[in-house]
Amino acid sequence: MSDIILKLAGVLESRKSADPAASYVASLHQKGLNKILEKVGEEATETIIAAKDVSQPGQHTEVVKETADLWFHSLVMLSHLNIDTQELLDELERRFGTSGIEEKASRQQ
Amino acid sequence: MSDIILKLAGVLESRKSADPAASYVASLHQKGLNKILEKVGEEATETIIAAKDVSQPGQHTEVVKETADLWFHSLVMLSHLNIDTQELLDELERRFGTSGIEEKASRQQ
Amino acid sequence: MSDIILKLAGVLESRKSADPAASYVASLHQKGLNKILEKVGEEATETIIAAKDVSQPGQHTEVVKETADLWFHSLVMLSHLNIDTQELLDELERRFGTSGIEEKASRQQ
Amino acid sequence: MSDIILKLAGVLESRKSADPAASYVASLHQKGLNKILEKVGEEATETIIAAKDVSQPGQHTEVVKETADLWFHSLVMLSHLNIDTQELLDELERRFGTSGIEEKASRQQ
Repeated sequence: MSDIILKLAGVLESRKSADPAASYVASLHQKGLNKILEKVGEEATETIIAAKDVSQPGQHTEVVKETADLWFHSLVMLSHLNIDTQELLDELERRFGTSGIEEKASRQQ
Repeated sequence: MSDIILKLAGVLESRKSADPAASYVASLHQKGLNKILEKVGEEATETIIAAKDVSQPGQHTEVVKETADLWFHSLVMLSHLNIDTQELLDELERRFGTSGIEEKASRQQ
Repeated sequence: MSDIILKLAGVLESRKSADPAASYVASLHQKGLNKILEKVGEEATETIIAAKDVSQPGQHTEVVKETADLWFHSLVMLSHLNIDTQELLDELERRFGTSGIEEKASRQQ
Repeated sequence: MSDIILKLAGVLESRKSADPAASYVASLHQKGLNKILEKVGEEATETIIAAKDVSQPGQHTEVVKETADLWFHSLVMLSHLNIDTQELLDELERRFGTSGIEEKASRQQ
């Protein structure tokens, strides 16, 4: 069981019905899927830029924060689409239940 | 402890030194940071497109797969930059140790 | 009249009906909108990465090439959606028909 | 000569030294390359989302506006990096001076 991720998914789920004025997550759901996807794209870009700057002072922490933002908004997206986070973890686990060669073949890229 | 994510991170770490001809992960490390970041951007785009198509048959699974690809390549990126995945999980947990209001304020967006 | 852009748009339009085996543009149309949008996202990421590397030898040219790829696939997207490129140029021109202050206000961001 | 694009590039160049409080373009330059690249990534995402919604009422215009935003910020990026917009237009023209087959080969993808 992936405790932290599933715990976070549970918290996110509970905030779907919170007051949008009080919860950032509820406000995202209220704004809708496009807004959530814009955030996924935005955070991906910021992760990439932070990673390119990683050798600069303080940027190690910045990469961690931007990646957390990217995962956070990915989880909000799954919640918005009523997709169980466990499915994501199962898919990730499935990819690692094989040897290096099989892994590569299973991805076909 | 976030078992699956940390287990995956451990597997990814072990593959850093694998034969690039046999391991997709090792081949990404060999190609370098820019190639890994291109994959992060690519998978973010594919996640967004899959989410927009979610009402079509089979697309629920597609969203799961693309999100898994996005997280997978994020983990390869952290590994390439020698950033411990535990830092990412700590950052995610930190954001949820607060109420809805505090969460929103702590993100300042 | 924006000669080069409109000339390119005209060439792109003529290739919509070309043999996909012989024309890259025709092959993109055959693969469909999602493939074209994936390319837009991919080229945006590559433009960003090239720009971050601009101080390295040869990267000036790389930024030009990646930006050209981004614009090229944007034009293919407009063509696929049957949107006239002249509308894009009109929109760009409209934004510059005002003073700095008005420009900012008109964008509201 | 690509009149509109080059005219816009000229206006953008002149605004580099404008008051950031009065000009959106000057404010972008003041915030720096990362901010400009974030906008390029953001507008690419918004273009993709708008294109996926193109069949909905009003979305045709939205695709045009988002693509214009993407090109606008690409031009600001080139200006920030002191890259002449004419180089971009030359690169685009170079790709179309060939037949469909050659075009595909020249892109090598």
